[in-house]
Amino acid sequence: MSTGRWRREVSPDDRTIHCGVVLLTVHAYAAPSATEPLAKTTITRRDVGPHDVLIKIEYAGICHSDIHTVRSEWGEAHYPLAPGHEIAGVVVETGSAVTKHRVGDRVGVGCMVDSCGKCVSCRNGEEQYCLEGMVATYDGIDRDGTVTQGGYSTHVVVAEDFVLKIPDGLDLAVAAPLLCAGITTYTPLRRHGAGPGKRVAVVGLGGLGHMAVQIAHAMGAEVTVLSQSLKKREDGLRLGADHYYATSDESTFETLAGSFDLVLNTVSAVLDIDRYLSLLAVGGTLAFVGAPAESLGFGVFPLLTNRRSLSGSMIGGIGQTQEMLDFCAEHGLGAEIEIISADRINEAYERVLASDVRYRFVIDTSTLD
Amino acid sequence: MSTGRWRREVSPDDRTIHCGVVLLTVHAYAAPSATEPLAKTTITRRDVGPHDVLIKIEYAGICHSDIHTVRSEWGEAHYPLAPGHEIAGVVVETGSAVTKHRVGDRVGVGCMVDSCGKCVSCRNGEEQYCLEGMVATYDGIDRDGTVTQGGYSTHVVVAEDFVLKIPDGLDLAVAAPLLCAGITTYTPLRRHGAGPGKRVAVVGLGGLGHMAVQIAHAMGAEVTVLSQSLKKREDGLRLGADHYYATSDESTFETLAGSFDLVLNTVSAVLDIDRYLSLLAVGGTLAFVGAPAESLGFGVFPLLTNRRSLSGSMIGGIGQTQEMLDFCAEHGLGAEIEIISADRINEAYERVLASDVRYRFVIDTSTLD
Repeated sequence: MSTGRWRREVSPDDRTIHCGVVLLTVHAYAAPSATEPLAKTTITRRDVGPHDVLIKIEYAGICHSDIHTVRSEWGEAHYPLAPGHEIAGVVVETGSAVTKHRVGDRVGVGCMVDSCGKCVSCRNGEEQYCLEGMVATYDGIDRDGTVTQGGYSTHVVVAEDFVLKIPDGLDLAVAAPLLCAGITTYTPLRRHGAGPGKRVAVVGLGGLGHMAVQIAHAMGAEVTVLSQSLKKREDGLRLGADHYYATSDESTFETLAGSFDLVLNTVSAVLDIDRYLSLLAVGGTLAFVGAPAESLGFGVFPLLTNRRSLSGSMIGGIGQTQEMLDFCAEHGLGAEIEIISADRINEAYERVLASDVRYRFVIDTSTLD
Repeated sequence: MSTGRWRREVSPDDRTIHCGVVLLTVHAYAAPSATEPLAKTTITRRDVGPHDVLIKIEYAGICHSDIHTVRSEWGEAHYPLAPGHEIAGVVVETGSAVTKHRVGDRVGVGCMVDSCGKCVSCRNGEEQYCLEGMVATYDGIDRDGTVTQGGYSTHVVVAEDFVLKIPDGLDLAVAAPLLCAGITTYTPLRRHGAGPGKRVAVVGLGGLGHMAVQIAHAMGAEVTVLSQSLKKREDGLRLGADHYYATSDESTFETLAGSFDLVLNTVSAVLDIDRYLSLLAVGGTLAFVGAPAESLGFGVFPLLTNRRSLSGSMIGGIGQTQEMLDFCAEHGLGAEIEIISADRINEAYERVLASDVRYRFVIDTSTLD
């Protein structure tokens, strides 16, 4: 076991042995239950195994999913729970068999930390669809049966295959949200061929939407933002949108009928699907990365008569996540962020729910201990 | 103008001049209104223009769409109306500029008889999605403003570009239903990659479904029929299905969860979309060629969590229709038919509505005059 510099930084407890297993105790911000605010605490991490890397987390983004999960809105969560799956930091220790990362590397961790590695999805580089179930970065059940804890924390131990390299050109704080908001939008844009000559509409200019606009623009597509109002219009155009329309304006749907090859929905509000389908050209796709829990209604005829599709997409595989990070570095893209100290996490949650953030909160994890 | 043999066969009226326009009067079976049965009558065809061919119809299939249309269930139709868009016959006259077809050729006409030829859809060989609107074979508004009349008739005049060649190996009666039921299923099977290693489920073993099973099997896919009951199981297996399940059996959906790359829905009944989505593997598509008029509900999460899609498809382009006919001839495929005389059309309609046909009625148009 190495005695690298992380040992000095992990406090108060350092490594301990619990039931014969070596554990690392680290600082974190966690929810004690579904109804209580998050609070400062310590959590344990497994010891660094042969294929693991220990990462000193520097920044962790706040994703809307964090709020849903810690409040048990997507099913009963395990408590105490430290959320966070937009993690950027530096490698401070590597396991004996690690080959991909070295101490000092700038790295990131996204929404998953393990998968079976053998099923057809894993073999196809789509670990997020692992047939045995990927291990979520927080509130997931790890291979050893423990519940995973996320990035609102000073350190995390992750299998090297699920650790991404953050290119030199990308600031760690700006890169953190890419690990979820970036890859979630990059993958369907790539899959549906966003590029020169393609007309892409992005529904919603929030955490996901503001990345979708940047990425689609950098891919060469003609980008239109469809937002409830024109309040963020200047931001949208600055981020790369060619056009900006308010969906509260009835004429928008008439003006834009049949206009898009891809409409990417980044919001979780209930949409009138048929109205959004009407915006698609022949062969167009309405792709969901945001989703309400409610069932949505649609007419099949609009699908038939213009060869339209509805599709869903969930984050992206590890290989494509690396590709996305490299793409963002190459094109100078990143999240627009508001860096906060840990004691403002609960306040930030309320502001996320009120859509009062442009466009992502990022926790400075040096404020955790 | 030629004086070919068709002139002797068109009776009682032959060509007439109406408001200065030469018209051909031909025998037909048509609906006088939405609520009356079809009856023997005569209708007029435009004279054969430079780019037109005159076809002596030998067989016309009965499609469920015919019934919906003549009863104004899909919007108010124009009466009297002769339906029929599964037409097989022989060329008896060609316009002066026709190059693709010759007198004596065995030919077919499907669901459309014209399109703009200039828009992006037409240029892409998807005339059915013509941005100016394709001209439907019956109850469509033709370029000259007249209402088109379909294949329940002895003759039809069609622009040569919308006339398909029926390969020698295909019997005309068996080929007729391919012009709708064949191409409607062939196109989504091709688009979604039905072939070796792909698992395709066909929902419903009717006119469309029995073609989908044959075509998907010939493409090399593993084919499963999902039918309400096991009544047609023997037929399904004989047509090429590898497996056959009853959807009335609750265990079917558990047994087959996550099993298919493509589920092709050929029925127009209201489906529980989420149950059918649950049958799809990662990346799978639920494709509709049959459609209820009602709005359907679906949950977005099942789309996200397995990268699933819902899509629609409407017939196919002219080029692909020819490809389908050639494919069917090459593989010895065709519709299973019951040939009827014209005086049994109304009875056949009732049997179609009762699903009492295996699997397509075809009218022998020699019984029309």
